[in-house]
Amino acid sequence: MAELCIRSILVTGANRGIGLGFVQHLLALPNPPEWIFATCRDPKGQRAQELQKLASKHPNLVVVPLEVTDPASIKAAAASVGERLKGSGLNLLINNAGIGNNNSLDTETLDDMLHVFTTNTVAPLLLSQAFLPLLKKAAQGNPGSGLSCSKAAIINMSSTAGSIQDLFLWQYGQALSYRCSKAALNMLTRCQSMGYRDHGILCVALHPGWVKTDMGGTLEDKSRVTVDESVGGMLKVLSNLSEKDSGTFLNWEGKVMAW
Amino acid sequence: MAELCIRSILVTGANRGIGLGFVQHLLALPNPPEWIFATCRDPKGQRAQELQKLASKHPNLVVVPLEVTDPASIKAAAASVGERLKGSGLNLLINNAGIGNNNSLDTETLDDMLHVFTTNTVAPLLLSQAFLPLLKKAAQGNPGSGLSCSKAAIINMSSTAGSIQDLFLWQYGQALSYRCSKAALNMLTRCQSMGYRDHGILCVALHPGWVKTDMGGTLEDKSRVTVDESVGGMLKVLSNLSEKDSGTFLNWEGKVMAW
Ligand SMILES: NC(=O)c1ccc[n+]([C@@H]2O[C@H](COP(=O)([O-])OP(=O)(O)OC[C@H]3O[C@@H](n4cnc5c(N)ncnc54)[C@H](OP(=O)(O)O)[C@@H]3O)[C@@H](O)[C@H]2O)c1
Ligand SMILES: NC(=O)c1ccc[n+]([C@@H]2O[C@H](COP(=O)([O-])OP(=O)(O)OC[C@H]3O[C@@H](n4cnc5c(N)ncnc54)[C@H](OP(=O)(O)O)[C@@H]3O)[C@@H](O)[C@H]2O)c1
Repeated sequence: MAELCIRSILVTGANRGIGLGFVQHLLALPNPPEWIFATCRDPKGQRAQELQKLASKHPNLVVVPLEVTDPASIKAAAASVGERLKGSGLNLLINNAGIGNNNSLDTETLDDMLHVFTTNTVAPLLLSQAFLPLLKKAAQGNPGSGLSCSKAAIINMSSTAGSIQDLFLWQYGQALSYRCSKAALNMLTRCQSMGYRDHGILCVALHPGWVKTDMGGTLEDKSRVTVDESVGGMLKVLSNLSEKDSGTFLNWEGKVMAW
Repeated sequence: MAELCIRSILVTGANRGIGLGFVQHLLALPNPPEWIFATCRDPKGQRAQELQKLASKHPNLVVVPLEVTDPASIKAAAASVGERLKGSGLNLLINNAGIGNNNSLDTETLDDMLHVFTTNTVAPLLLSQAFLPLLKKAAQGNPGSGLSCSKAAIINMSSTAGSIQDLFLWQYGQALSYRCSKAALNMLTRCQSMGYRDHGILCVALHPGWVKTDMGGTLEDKSRVTVDESVGGMLKVLSNLSEKDSGTFLNWEGKVMAW
């Protein structure tokens, strides 16, 4: 396994669930990043306590306020991260924040469709736009090598529920707005891989598994994995990504998923 | 070729382009529908003149006002169609109205993403919800046979630009919001095919070809087809659809497209 050697990384939705798991695993790496930017909506609130506790112990962890559906908040976050990095770039942007609901074909509404799409699809687009200068800078600072996460990458947290072919767990929940948003996110990822390749930026859509988080729900099923298993698996996958993987849709074990 | 035997059909965005082509071809069928509901935003406006001219000659053609992004307008259209049908059902709903732009990864905005998604993805969902009782009624009136367009069907006008795998014509235009909206529409179609199968309703996503319309643009390319070729091809495809095709993504020549 190649070693993940990231100087700087940003994870959205880092106060709980998979995002928080990423922060914990990154801090525990033998060679941890110089900067871990962990964003959350309300850094001072109840739900960010665990993240703040970590930050008080680890000077390389910076908590950044970010509401991903608000373009002004995205701009402010990019500016504050840019300042911290003092002229160096950002290696890895993990668009992890996301929401779901279990609306059906019958109960789905215009408002819910737009809210879920804004959070799960448009936010990753706007975040990538805002952090593009920093990602480019990281790629330029690493000119020799091919595409990799140690150079510069955008990782979009998708879901197998976004696989049009598989319609994963349809019987468990129709989750219409969620499925549409993740299919669109997969399309965004493919487009980003085409558009950003020449800038030296790798782009991948990841399915984290069916993970035991608030979003993952409470159903007991033997296929469910813990946050630790999921994040451990994804970090291994990230460390092995190269040119040929850009624009693909992989799960936490590195398996290619159907669009 | 099976014969298309539709009592009633509704086509959105029927005042120009492919939608108008559908109306013209349907009127010219040897066995034309009893009711053709042709919707457009502004039936009294300049852009509906050709449609109004047709309606003045053909009593089976009814022009219905419909702004597809407005839930109240959708409800009103469904009510007025229901009244006309006097207790009988609607066989075929063609969600054709759509918009595009050529925004790139760099220039795409939140507002454009939401506007295109609302028109191309959410509207077909809301229209299907609103017309579901009439579609079910048509299916119930035809209980013996398997799924078909002569029974009850939802046809979503997608695009090969919505194929995540193909990224059709990427060099010609990134069209980010458009691609995302059509990938999400393909997901919607798959979900509808699962959810509506037991109601006897067939659901398919169609790519009309690269067609010479306002949207199709002015680029000269030998792969481009006329509205007549496209609509003629699609009607042939529709007439042959059966159970096994529900939930697929086909082009105007009947070829299966990659998600
Ligand atoms: N769990 C699974 O089984 C599973 C499966 C497939 C894919 N995924 C994907 O994995 C990602 C993480 O999921 P999870 O299971 O960790 O979910 P989770 O436990 O519900 O956590 C979601 C995170 O996203 C944040 N978030 C939501 N909306 C936000 C907004 N508008 N602005 C800023 N932050 C926002 C939440 O912040 P707050 O605390 O402020 O709400 C929270 O930190 C999501 O993209 C999800 O779709 C999860
Ligand atoms: N042309 C192609 O090469 C091509 C290729 C692939 C897919 N398609 C798809 O085929 C469908 C028809 O395309 P086209 O080429 O015929 O496009 P077009 O010539 O631009 O016509 C679009 C139609 O949609 C209507 N429309 C747009 N927004 C609407 C709204 N909010 N409410 C009600 N009606 C609305 C327009 O009405 P107004 O006149 O009022 O604007 C017009 O009737 C679209 O879904 C398109 O994505 C086309």
